[in-house]
Amino acid sequence: MRRFNAKQVLVGRPLDTSRLGETLLPKRLALPIFCSDPLSSVAYATEEILLVLALGGVTLLHLAWYAAAAIVFLLVVVVASYRQTCYAYPGGGGAYVVSAENLGATAALTAASALLVDYVLTVAVSVVSGVAAITSAVPSLHDHQVALSVGFVTVLTLLNLRGVRESGRIFAIPTYGFVAVIYVMFLIAGIRLATGTTIRAESAQLPIHQAGTYTGIALVLLAMRAFASGCTALTGVEAISNGVPAFQKPKSRNAAATLAAMGILSVTMFVGITTLALVYKVHVTADPTELGLPPGTATSTALAQIARATFGHVDVLFYLVQAFTAGVLVLAANTAFNGFPMLASILARDRYAPRQLYNRGDRLVYSNGVVLLALAAIALIIAFDAELTRLIQLYIIGVFVSFTLSQAGMVRHWRKELSTGPAAPRRRKIHRSLAINAIGAALTGLVLVIVLITKFTHGAWLVIIAMPVLFLGMKGVRRHYEQVARQVAVSSTERPRKPARHHVLVLVASVHAPTLKAIGFAQALRPSTLTALTVAADEDAERLRQQWSEHALDVPLKILHSPYREVVGPLIAYVQERAAADPDAMVSVVIPEYIVGHWWEQPLHNQNALRLKARLLFTPGVAVIDVPYLLQSARPQETAAARTPSGPDT
Amino acid sequence: MRRFNAKQVLVGRPLDTSRLGETLLPKRLALPIFCSDPLSSVAYATEEILLVLALGGVTLLHLAWYAAAAIVFLLVVVVASYRQTCYAYPGGGGAYVVSAENLGATAALTAASALLVDYVLTVAVSVVSGVAAITSAVPSLHDHQVALSVGFVTVLTLLNLRGVRESGRIFAIPTYGFVAVIYVMFLIAGIRLATGTTIRAESAQLPIHQAGTYTGIALVLLAMRAFASGCTALTGVEAISNGVPAFQKPKSRNAAATLAAMGILSVTMFVGITTLALVYKVHVTADPTELGLPPGTATSTALAQIARATFGHVDVLFYLVQAFTAGVLVLAANTAFNGFPMLASILARDRYAPRQLYNRGDRLVYSNGVVLLALAAIALIIAFDAELTRLIQLYIIGVFVSFTLSQAGMVRHWRKELSTGPAAPRRRKIHRSLAINAIGAALTGLVLVIVLITKFTHGAWLVIIAMPVLFLGMKGVRRHYEQVARQVAVSSTERPRKPARHHVLVLVASVHAPTLKAIGFAQALRPSTLTALTVAADEDAERLRQQWSEHALDVPLKILHSPYREVVGPLIAYVQERAAADPDAMVSVVIPEYIVGHWWEQPLHNQNALRLKARLLFTPGVAVIDVPYLLQSARPQETAAARTPSGPDT
Repeated sequence: MRRFNAKQVLVGRPLDTSRLGETLLPKRLALPIFCSDPLSSVAYATEEILLVLALGGVTLLHLAWYAAAAIVFLLVVVVASYRQTCYAYPGGGGAYVVSAENLGATAALTAASALLVDYVLTVAVSVVSGVAAITSAVPSLHDHQVALSVGFVTVLTLLNLRGVRESGRIFAIPTYGFVAVIYVMFLIAGIRLATGTTIRAESAQLPIHQAGTYTGIALVLLAMRAFASGCTALTGVEAISNGVPAFQKPKSRNAAATLAAMGILSVTMFVGITTLALVYKVHVTADPTELGLPPGTATSTALAQIARATFGHVDVLFYLVQAFTAGVLVLAANTAFNGFPMLASILARDRYAPRQLYNRGDRLVYSNGVVLLALAAIALIIAFDAELTRLIQLYIIGVFVSFTLSQAGMVRHWRKELSTGPAAPRRRKIHRSLAINAIGAALTGLVLVIVLITKFTHGAWLVIIAMPVLFLGMKGVRRHYEQVARQVAVSSTERPRKPARHHVLVLVASVHAPTLKAIGFAQALRPSTLTALTVAADEDAERLRQQWSEHALDVPLKILHSPYREVVGPLIAYVQERAAADPDAMVSVVIPEYIVGHWWEQPLHNQNALRLKARLLFTPGVAVIDVPYLLQSARPQETAAARTPSGPDT
Repeated sequence: MRRFNAKQVLVGRPLDTSRLGETLLPKRLALPIFCSDPLSSVAYATEEILLVLALGGVTLLHLAWYAAAAIVFLLVVVVASYRQTCYAYPGGGGAYVVSAENLGATAALTAASALLVDYVLTVAVSVVSGVAAITSAVPSLHDHQVALSVGFVTVLTLLNLRGVRESGRIFAIPTYGFVAVIYVMFLIAGIRLATGTTIRAESAQLPIHQAGTYTGIALVLLAMRAFASGCTALTGVEAISNGVPAFQKPKSRNAAATLAAMGILSVTMFVGITTLALVYKVHVTADPTELGLPPGTATSTALAQIARATFGHVDVLFYLVQAFTAGVLVLAANTAFNGFPMLASILARDRYAPRQLYNRGDRLVYSNGVVLLALAAIALIIAFDAELTRLIQLYIIGVFVSFTLSQAGMVRHWRKELSTGPAAPRRRKIHRSLAINAIGAALTGLVLVIVLITKFTHGAWLVIIAMPVLFLGMKGVRRHYEQVARQVAVSSTERPRKPARHHVLVLVASVHAPTLKAIGFAQALRPSTLTALTVAADEDAERLRQQWSEHALDVPLKILHSPYREVVGPLIAYVQERAAADPDAMVSVVIPEYIVGHWWEQPLHNQNALRLKARLLFTPGVAVIDVPYLLQSARPQETAAARTPSGPDT
């Protein structure tokens, strides 16, 4: 029972498909589940902008205003675009689906590769930056970032294996809590600033060692790079359009509304945080030494500095901000845990991914996908030593690839709609949507180019390699499945062909209950020929012949001499011979098997049977028949339970 | 072909049993093969004595004389005793066999546990000390002792998988070479000393930091411990009596003669080396700091110091000694590679060890045993960080346990012989043998006690735990096999029972070639009932029903609704039901299997079949029938080769 129990405790009782309805999400739950990613990204977006500008020294920090403004504009456009998608694709309009329907397989697969990469990065980046929030509050944990991050991913995995509904509950509190404390922070900051208090971040006094002087093109590029880094604020916006089917009816309307709410929250928080960062003169750099601090100093995140400065000596509020920030960030990873398995399952359905990803697990989620995502993210976290700024570099490309493709897809979609010649009012709506998506496509495309230019040398190349690899991998899987399908396809006229003759070979080592059972069974098959087969290892052959006569067995006994004391080889050879000798017959090899109940008993029994079976399956025209003989330790009362899955009826 | 080829290159072409004769050993080959262990142990025995005495400071080193004398005496007695065994047990008289025949199972298993532990330690100790000889000559390698040791064990494993004969050839040179260079060293040393030269070891001037003052009991104990450590010189003496059957005829005579030769060589070399060590005033300690050297200094072995001192500036001779010492020591491990698998195979024959150890591999050796031994030794080397003096502590107990038991067994053996009332001349011979073995038993028993007393606290406890564990493990294995034998035993009156009815269930997912093949085959079995079985995952059920009618399949289709989208559980439940419904019938589950040729294609196909089979085997009254469908990638021309064993005919 143990395996089963453990599973239940961790993953919960299985859900009936008929309960799928119950797991549909009201807006108030959908927001935290699908938006924890875009909302939480404001926790680090500002910092990433400042980090880049810091290269140009303190004087360039003011450029953050422009970067932020551009990002806000972009965010509004993208949200507007995806709202169109929610209406156009109530069945879920992920970049993959939209591109597939409007731009063809290649575009779709490109989008898919981008999304898969991004889901993994969402988990990695969010969790790592959540841990950064924690270590900003508890510097002593600074050296355990990798361990903490991996731990959080593991926890998330288990939560998600429990199914989306419970997740919703669990995730609502931190997300709303985060939004709340940030607004409280704005309020207090506003009051204090309005009353003429000058507030400075702890790092305001620190000089920034200027990496270089940026003028002309260099300056533009730096600004563009800052902008590109800030675009992390947009990550995860598409999650909602992906998850429309998970919403309560009216699905599209609710989804669009949730998307709008998310947009408003993101924009306000992002603007607020950026403003305070600049007003408080927060100085952040990738390397503490550039701030004149000793190497390896545990520096605080920009948000942590803002919070500390705002709340002064009211520590409890500061810790509250850090706690909720950490919470929402770790949960942001959950967006991916919802999106990745769903996408993987769609890909599996379309034969671009292994079939296992299509199947649902016991709970109403796609277990395999969840586990796969978790493993990939953990690998990434360990590989990049849980360093946020290095991971961020990989992050944004995929996002904008999928943005651009899905927006372009939408444009094509509306074009098609128009071509059907709808009525005037509908036409106007379509024209409006078309315009919105066109702007979205153009803008995200432009940003993609900027990101590519500015980030390539900073690690983005990794993604630019990973995506084509995934792309080709998926194509390969599809090709394989198609080949197989072709190979096994049958015309409706085809009927099962009964083999002309059936030769049965029973493997025997000595005469005992399992052997007799196997022989009895073999006789019940009423074969054309029945032969008992053995390999003469040492003197066993003679003993066997005697037993044979003792038991007066009327089955002919064929003894194979094995010059190499190798059992499997000669057997295979003989079976192949028999099969070749009578091509339109079927040859069955009956293997009497000892079945033991305890794992440690297994190695005590000759492994020949196992190796033999594996090999026989590759012999054309041969079937393998296992006739198990259950030893006491394997008798049902004991094992049925242990080996029964999580269904009450079994 | 690859696996096959690689194996051939490393392990050589398979040997025919009929060639077993060829691999019988002439004395000149038997000596190096069976005696590299006892001969090589003189390379460290002396040093181990000095290491212990050094604790009492320089003044106690002279006690080495007495320890050495006692060891020589012991060696002579043990050799004499085992010569008797060679005659009494031409079929191989290892401690296990002798105890089993004369002292019963418990004694035999005790001996076996002791031997198994010792074989592992022989490999570890010999290889490590061989590496020490190398690092004495090439100090720069001092930090890679673990890696080197593991490397050598690996090489030995491969050599031994090639079979005993080639081994003989390979091992003759270093063994004889070692003996030769040692004698040359004695000659030169003798001449130089005779001509009045005073020779001093490099460490002669180093003061030995005295760990404590030893008087009375403490002194006696220290002396005894020194003696016990020196007893490593006796390890491996039993190897020959074990290997009598491997000798050319007259087996016993040749074995006894070889044993005698080994004894003479060991004694002379041991005495010579000890003498020179004392004359040259070699100072060795476990920890260089006790010699007033900086910690971690790479010190030379006693033998290395003797050689360097003897040959003065004739470096080539010094390096020759080190090379051959290293060679013979690494090969000493080979004694175990001969003994361990043979013993394991005997234990397996007697059902005390897993059956796999009984089977021979392709070559005329017991491959499984060889690999097992190698792994255990490597584990030990890594665990003890390749430190000789720590490993030595574990070494000697097992040796003397088996010595004592086998000598005691011989005494009992001769007693039985006498009870048969043989003729006078034979009586005398028996009395003589009896006397020799009695002395041997008494003496080795005494030494065992000494070893236990003096070594227990120095790590020997590990062995004293390991031996009972092995003992119980082997008893457990035997018990299991006996239980199984009882469970499957049948009286000669029993006949195969044909099941009254045969219900066949064919698993189907959709209608394609593999399904049709399986159904056709199932029909050929002419079952009492034939049912096609499927689990309705999502909308697949409907599609299947349509295909079913399209193909006008006259087999009833049973569709199982799976509320948990779990395939295996419901199937098992249904099959169990069917089996329970008709107890005296047999239920067969026919599984159409896709067989793919490339490992990477495997995960692309649903793993349900695999999990299902594993579970079905545990369902009473159910047989599993695999009807493989070979996809192109698995068609013979390509795979037969890849999956064919090392037999020419396949």
